[in-house]
Amino acid sequence: MAGLKIFSGNANRPLAEDVCRCIGVPLGKALVGRFKNGETRVRIEEHVRGADVFVIQPTSSPSDHHVMELLIMSDALRRASADRITAVIPYYGYAKQEKKSAGREPITAKLVANLITTAGVDRVVALDLHAPAIQGFFDIPVDNLTAIPFLADLLVKEGIEDVVAVSPDVGGVARANDFRYRINAELAVIAKRRPKPDEAEALEMVGQVDGKCAVIVDDMISTGGTLEVAANLLHERGARAVYAYAVHPVFAGNAFELIERSFLDRVVVTNTVTVPPETRDNKIQVVNIGWLIAEAIQRIHEGRSISAMFETRRFQQELLI
Amino acid sequence: MAGLKIFSGNANRPLAEDVCRCIGVPLGKALVGRFKNGETRVRIEEHVRGADVFVIQPTSSPSDHHVMELLIMSDALRRASADRITAVIPYYGYAKQEKKSAGREPITAKLVANLITTAGVDRVVALDLHAPAIQGFFDIPVDNLTAIPFLADLLVKEGIEDVVAVSPDVGGVARANDFRYRINAELAVIAKRRPKPDEAEALEMVGQVDGKCAVIVDDMISTGGTLEVAANLLHERGARAVYAYAVHPVFAGNAFELIERSFLDRVVVTNTVTVPPETRDNKIQVVNIGWLIAEAIQRIHEGRSISAMFETRRFQQELLI
Amino acid sequence: MAGLKIFSGNANRPLAEDVCRCIGVPLGKALVGRFKNGETRVRIEEHVRGADVFVIQPTSSPSDHHVMELLIMSDALRRASADRITAVIPYYGYAKQEKKSAGREPITAKLVANLITTAGVDRVVALDLHAPAIQGFFDIPVDNLTAIPFLADLLVKEGIEDVVAVSPDVGGVARANDFRYRINAELAVIAKRRPKPDEAEALEMVGQVDGKCAVIVDDMISTGGTLEVAANLLHERGARAVYAYAVHPVFAGNAFELIERSFLDRVVVTNTVTVPPETRDNKIQVVNIGWLIAEAIQRIHEGRSISAMFETRRFQQELLI
Amino acid sequence: MAGLKIFSGNANRPLAEDVCRCIGVPLGKALVGRFKNGETRVRIEEHVRGADVFVIQPTSSPSDHHVMELLIMSDALRRASADRITAVIPYYGYAKQEKKSAGREPITAKLVANLITTAGVDRVVALDLHAPAIQGFFDIPVDNLTAIPFLADLLVKEGIEDVVAVSPDVGGVARANDFRYRINAELAVIAKRRPKPDEAEALEMVGQVDGKCAVIVDDMISTGGTLEVAANLLHERGARAVYAYAVHPVFAGNAFELIERSFLDRVVVTNTVTVPPETRDNKIQVVNIGWLIAEAIQRIHEGRSISAMFETRRFQQELLI
Amino acid sequence: MAGLKIFSGNANRPLAEDVCRCIGVPLGKALVGRFKNGETRVRIEEHVRGADVFVIQPTSSPSDHHVMELLIMSDALRRASADRITAVIPYYGYAKQEKKSAGREPITAKLVANLITTAGVDRVVALDLHAPAIQGFFDIPVDNLTAIPFLADLLVKEGIEDVVAVSPDVGGVARANDFRYRINAELAVIAKRRPKPDEAEALEMVGQVDGKCAVIVDDMISTGGTLEVAANLLHERGARAVYAYAVHPVFAGNAFELIERSFLDRVVVTNTVTVPPETRDNKIQVVNIGWLIAEAIQRIHEGRSISAMFETRRFQQELLI
Amino acid sequence: MAGLKIFSGNANRPLAEDVCRCIGVPLGKALVGRFKNGETRVRIEEHVRGADVFVIQPTSSPSDHHVMELLIMSDALRRASADRITAVIPYYGYAKQEKKSAGREPITAKLVANLITTAGVDRVVALDLHAPAIQGFFDIPVDNLTAIPFLADLLVKEGIEDVVAVSPDVGGVARANDFRYRINAELAVIAKRRPKPDEAEALEMVGQVDGKCAVIVDDMISTGGTLEVAANLLHERGARAVYAYAVHPVFAGNAFELIERSFLDRVVVTNTVTVPPETRDNKIQVVNIGWLIAEAIQRIHEGRSISAMFETRRFQQELLI
Repeated sequence: MAGLKIFSGNANRPLAEDVCRCIGVPLGKALVGRFKNGETRVRIEEHVRGADVFVIQPTSSPSDHHVMELLIMSDALRRASADRITAVIPYYGYAKQEKKSAGREPITAKLVANLITTAGVDRVVALDLHAPAIQGFFDIPVDNLTAIPFLADLLVKEGIEDVVAVSPDVGGVARANDFRYRINAELAVIAKRRPKPDEAEALEMVGQVDGKCAVIVDDMISTGGTLEVAANLLHERGARAVYAYAVHPVFAGNAFELIERSFLDRVVVTNTVTVPPETRDNKIQVVNIGWLIAEAIQRIHEGRSISAMFETRRFQQELLI
Repeated sequence: MAGLKIFSGNANRPLAEDVCRCIGVPLGKALVGRFKNGETRVRIEEHVRGADVFVIQPTSSPSDHHVMELLIMSDALRRASADRITAVIPYYGYAKQEKKSAGREPITAKLVANLITTAGVDRVVALDLHAPAIQGFFDIPVDNLTAIPFLADLLVKEGIEDVVAVSPDVGGVARANDFRYRINAELAVIAKRRPKPDEAEALEMVGQVDGKCAVIVDDMISTGGTLEVAANLLHERGARAVYAYAVHPVFAGNAFELIERSFLDRVVVTNTVTVPPETRDNKIQVVNIGWLIAEAIQRIHEGRSISAMFETRRFQQELLI
Repeated sequence: MAGLKIFSGNANRPLAEDVCRCIGVPLGKALVGRFKNGETRVRIEEHVRGADVFVIQPTSSPSDHHVMELLIMSDALRRASADRITAVIPYYGYAKQEKKSAGREPITAKLVANLITTAGVDRVVALDLHAPAIQGFFDIPVDNLTAIPFLADLLVKEGIEDVVAVSPDVGGVARANDFRYRINAELAVIAKRRPKPDEAEALEMVGQVDGKCAVIVDDMISTGGTLEVAANLLHERGARAVYAYAVHPVFAGNAFELIERSFLDRVVVTNTVTVPPETRDNKIQVVNIGWLIAEAIQRIHEGRSISAMFETRRFQQELLI
Repeated sequence: MAGLKIFSGNANRPLAEDVCRCIGVPLGKALVGRFKNGETRVRIEEHVRGADVFVIQPTSSPSDHHVMELLIMSDALRRASADRITAVIPYYGYAKQEKKSAGREPITAKLVANLITTAGVDRVVALDLHAPAIQGFFDIPVDNLTAIPFLADLLVKEGIEDVVAVSPDVGGVARANDFRYRINAELAVIAKRRPKPDEAEALEMVGQVDGKCAVIVDDMISTGGTLEVAANLLHERGARAVYAYAVHPVFAGNAFELIERSFLDRVVVTNTVTVPPETRDNKIQVVNIGWLIAEAIQRIHEGRSISAMFETRRFQQELLI
Repeated sequence: MAGLKIFSGNANRPLAEDVCRCIGVPLGKALVGRFKNGETRVRIEEHVRGADVFVIQPTSSPSDHHVMELLIMSDALRRASADRITAVIPYYGYAKQEKKSAGREPITAKLVANLITTAGVDRVVALDLHAPAIQGFFDIPVDNLTAIPFLADLLVKEGIEDVVAVSPDVGGVARANDFRYRINAELAVIAKRRPKPDEAEALEMVGQVDGKCAVIVDDMISTGGTLEVAANLLHERGARAVYAYAVHPVFAGNAFELIERSFLDRVVVTNTVTVPPETRDNKIQVVNIGWLIAEAIQRIHEGRSISAMFETRRFQQELLI
Repeated sequence: MAGLKIFSGNANRPLAEDVCRCIGVPLGKALVGRFKNGETRVRIEEHVRGADVFVIQPTSSPSDHHVMELLIMSDALRRASADRITAVIPYYGYAKQEKKSAGREPITAKLVANLITTAGVDRVVALDLHAPAIQGFFDIPVDNLTAIPFLADLLVKEGIEDVVAVSPDVGGVARANDFRYRINAELAVIAKRRPKPDEAEALEMVGQVDGKCAVIVDDMISTGGTLEVAANLLHERGARAVYAYAVHPVFAGNAFELIERSFLDRVVVTNTVTVPPETRDNKIQVVNIGWLIAEAIQRIHEGRSISAMFETRRFQQELLI
């Protein structure tokens, strides 16, 4: 396998730079901008013939633009005879459109998987995909990394007692359970309910949080609405503290404002999506997972096992020291 | 669109016959057997050139054989110039292999989707897919029917009070919540937990069932092991009755025996998978959903909406009367 | 063939409405908007099973978003079992990225063609593609309509004498010659030249415009920069009037301002791309080509010839009366 | 090319072990079993990222299951980023379904070729394919090895005189002629005939076997029925001994019993398909061709010529010594 | 299905005209010629949008040119929105390259099948394919017609006695046996043999022809060399008359001369390939099978069974009267 | 990457030999001929397993045959397990069929691109493609080399003054302008015009050539008709000399005769297409570009940049010395 080259689109250049720093290679030179008519413009500005190329691009908002940047970069790299193109997509946009929730809806998460393959990508690295089945949307190899053990470890290190891991909806219970399994906490689930046919839908919680430290576990924080409502409910049910641990800081709409004024005491997220520095207030803590992606890229480039990364706690301990 | 023809593999011929009876067409003539060397032998024994063909075949156990029967029938139909081939797969085998739960595992549910497409199938009709994202494994249209509203209605008609819908694991909470949403019941969740790093994994229940009628909701009953353990736990926590409502009666291994000797008071399933008549004892009740598949086939053949089938309760009431 | 249905993305809804008005069908109901996280949201809100569906969507700025809207709508329509999906793309964005002008560039116009095919589109209707070879980027049928004869007729009707058709660059000479061929005008070509190796590149004109009415012919007006410079040169060379006839009003950047302050006396464009009404000042005249697209859609739906549309002048005369 | 790894499905593990012994590598660790619901379960239990992987799996009875095992193993290996996957299929099941012998039949041998390609296999090694054109069913490279020269050599070494090679049907004459060409024997052909329109079909032999040693040559022994009937006819026509030399010991139904009670004096087969040890009676002799497959695997792995293996007699002599 | 249209390439226009005459439709207008630089030039000169189009083109010599004509016509028809394109290939060139007879050879018959599919052909009609497995080279439907029963009937009508059907090589025994099965004749096989390792290869015949009428049966007559040598051998072995019945009159090289001077008394072929009228001397009899192709086209167009055509003798009798 | 191997079809073997001479490797051994029935026959006669193979084959006249030779060679190489197949197509036939100039025409240049990909070619090297968008017809990497700078340099070295670069038609102005840009010449364009609707089409020239040296620049000389007419016009307008510089010497029909008797003083072409030695008269000068192709092949084989070849004048100067 020829030399390793890492390129970045515009979605999260600081993360790409951090990954390069960890590996000890310079970020590949590429013009990724716009023509005056608004069309995305790409020119790879260094030699890639025969190289093992990684493109780091979360498909965060504006998703359509970031998806297209990734596709156009892949097209340029393929036509420039890169030997292998790996799309590193730390946050996979459109992940919630992974099924039809009603008739005549698209399955955009699958469509995007097809588009990525069509553009000439040979393999994908993702991180905490919203639904694990998205991995199966691809026929090319996908390595789905996870930051959940790392986030759980961070919580453990604080030595907090009486923790309850809370799934903010019925679709995320497996993730919350995985989190609490690692830290030996209780579990609670928030679910929608309609008391009577004519009455309005209401939230209900299954499980106990009274006097405990409630930790909402989710893969992403989008508008913050779900989080705010969950925090209210947890506060109302007597939680002595309300935390949220999530991987992807999507922070759409007025999420910062909602979080600020909510009963949330702390929000911990990773940097898969760019968060403006000024918004990192006391409540929001952003932890860096560039080292995790760097490790995966090196292992893929050298043909070493990715699954071994997650088999022992030793791995993270070594890396974290 | 030319004439409607319905064929059946060997996986569930009684269901296919029932569907034909509902629609009022004869089951298509086809030899689907085995050569003496054990290879699957197919010959379509009536004219299908230009026809709108449906093949009814749940990919139940022996799954490999039933999958291959479906593929070989499709190959024969395509080469015989059928205009359109719809695979009707009431139970989609390998559905639990829809993600990698560890490194170096297959995603067999996706592989089978690819095989079906490769064999020339133009569209798929499924029923209560284990994971809704499986729909996205296909690029051809998939209609994912559901028997959950129908099963919920059956329970409602009995007028039982104080019902709690129980998800037997953390992955099925959305399904249990959908069920209880329709009948205004409580929710409970059974989850695995490890108290301390060195202790054994144990089951835990979130929610209350004391003195109530606990209804375990699941998409399929496989070995019955999950069900038996859940029933024990529910009994122990004071449930006054324990029911199970599930769509697919896989009944692998000694499932019948487990159910018989368990704390389960009643098990309700549909006939997507063949259940031997002698095993339909007092506890196990099999309800026929041939009418649901028949309705879907007619709508597809005539170009009418499938989603309309599930938009109003009226539909089922009309059909059930 | 089942019923005709026409849907529109958000790129040029007024054009789609005009097309529907010409044909006498209502515009199909579809939600085409955005989720709060900025992702494109699509739901087709009427029955399309078995229908002959046309989606009208120029891939104008913001191109990435409009391309993705088109792809996601196609995905939804395919999964909803539309019988045939025709993408009507009056302006094909990224058309100038149809070749590599340097090493390691993408060919985005081809990439987009592949994406459209991947999303399930069965055929394409375009209008005055920037390069005719883009038609060959698709393996599905493409009907490339043209508004050039229509624009030429408009000029003829004014009875202006001594017209010179001017190609503003060396790549568009065939188009300018086609235009002038229809109206029996002279031809001129503007070309870049570098007098000596160390001197700056300069514009040069081949042909005579002194005392004549110079009509710049182009497929699109993008930033207006080319047009402004060309108008200056034509004015300087003694043209008594300077017009521009172009199909696609891309009008990127400060195009309106450039046009306003230029030597251009008149700019005639069609409505393939939305032009804000307030910008339609005295200089800029927008002519409607909805009737042309409507005619093509009807012919495709009914299986009648498209090429016949352009074989006689009679066609346009009939339609224009 | 990275390291060589060899895995085996359950169809013929002893052969795979023998191949590994010849090459001097351990058989790759993989779980290839069944879930309790009967579905095939695969987990590759060693690192394969970047490896040159061979999967040895004849698709013998139960064919559907063995085909699916091969496909699922390939899916797992592909998703685990094996660099190249070669399916080694010593006996290619469904090979007799390589054409339509009547209308509306499948061509299952082609379907299986498509399935293998769909599952991600990069190349195939086969042995004495029933019809050589099956090689063309694949677009990936296929190396079709042959054991016929080896079997012919075995016969030559015995020094038997007056041999007649007999094709048991009209489709296998080329194979029988190839065999006798190598050993300078006579040729005879057994063919079906219908004396008069109303009379029953009968067997007829073209050629002379009186007083000679008749050797029936075939690619496989399936139910043994063809063989028994042929042996009867040869005995009846005066053959002094009746042998059968065939590559694939399918031995379906009561083949052993038929052979035992037939006029056959000796049956020589290879071990492409597992033969239960207890059935290897005096009549049936199983010769090992593991060395042949091992040689092919090594040559493919090292990029050396396969066709050179069969160009000279020297190859086999060296290997046999 | 829209209207039926039949077009012809330049390979056998008289046959196409005869087919049109049988069906009662005019031959479609199309320019199929050459540009001055020798490239093939195609323009379809009548409306085909939505039509059910058949292109009649045997890929006879010059094969490369006739294959490309077929592909280019298909490309034009697909881009012109024909609804369905059926390639009618009465003689399938390159059919003898259907397997690798040595290492590093192409399988051109498969390559051509792939090219035909790539060019947009939806289905194929062939006639007496050299190897039936070629049908499996396609994934699109193939109807493989046969003229063998028709040729056999012609012989029967002559009332000749003591007929022996002779296969001129070991690969064609099944075809010769099929022929003789229909007419209750004897069978003989001509095969190559090498007496001793150092001696030259020689022809040998298995079966008896002394005093009989020997009828060589083959699918095609290529250079006539095989035929000449076979006729010599049959004459030498005492045949009282030597005939040849073959479907495809390829007649390459100096085939006419070889036949003229050979011991052949009569050669009967069909008109799948154009035979120059002046070469139809007393020995060579060309029988028209346009009616057979016409019948197949009509059945395909109307969605009626093709296999029914060959199920009874009645079919041909009706058609022949 | 394994060893480099270069093979040649029959279209331009001298060029292939020259390329091999430049690189210092022998031309690969392969039988590329015809069977007696006129079908193309290919056998690769040396080991290619794992090799990096280049096939040199302009698809010049007879184009269909040369295209098929290329496809069949690729099929053989792929099946023989070549690691990578690069088609080197110095002249790309059918390049002028790159768009539909009227309804119901093929886009043969795209069809051929699809055929090449279908045959298993992994990448393409071309030279001065007639339309640059043809590069986008492929999804595999294409390196489009150019001989235009080299031809311009040749002219510069002669020190001729007052040069005008003439585009012989409106489609080639960009190429002529590129040529003159490098040598600082004037530009002129020849275009068709129809004075009045009823009058005949006539040629017109835009630009001045009086007393100058007019150099017609084109990518290919086909029938020579365009060239003859252009030379007449230039002579008539007072050019003191008329030259033609073109890359591809197609020389169809009686091109030599037309050139001989025309006003052309000199014609300079490359050897991408074979020109019979006897036709290289005083007027026609053939310059060798084998070194250019050799350089590209070496760079591709070694993974070095192709675009770097054209970035500086230094490259050619070094090579030419």
